[in-house]
Amino acid sequence: MLKAIVYVTIKENVLDPQGSAVQGALHKLGFPEANHVRIGKYMEITLDTNNEQEAAAKVQVMCEKLLANTVVEDYRFELVQTVEA
Amino acid sequence: MLKAIVYVTIKENVLDPQGSAVQGALHKLGFPEANHVRIGKYMEITLDTNNEQEAAAKVQVMCEKLLANTVVEDYRFELVQTVEA
Repeated sequence: MLKAIVYVTIKENVLDPQGSAVQGALHKLGFPEANHVRIGKYMEITLDTNNEQEAAAKVQVMCEKLLANTVVEDYRFELVQTVEA
Repeated sequence: MLKAIVYVTIKENVLDPQGSAVQGALHKLGFPEANHVRIGKYMEITLDTNNEQEAAAKVQVMCEKLLANTVVEDYRFELVQTVEA
């Protein structure tokens, strides 16, 4: 089995209101050194296949169609072999 | 400057409704091989410090106090040196 680890992040030049809110909260909590916060998504998808090439192609389609909004978000992913349970 | 990369994930034995919803959507999109989806958060926090030890201690407190709900979520983080702009 393969596990896809997908990272979806907001593009660098797109505003990240959630990140700004967390940054403000960190300042109020006494962490003025937190000067730039960006928040994205981290997804783990276990795939019923061992074919890395096929899995990579499918995960890319998943990202384009569902997991990321490619207008404002970037995505990247890696595939890791998982031990059979 | 240091950048903290923080991963917040739902604990393994806690229900992840967002992950289940995405799994269902992937099945409907024609990806029946996606058999286990877990969704977490990915955060990048740029820190105005170069002291790794101090930064690690602070990021740990940030996670405990704000970034993760440690009742149902796990967190881990890594620190990377960033090039001065």
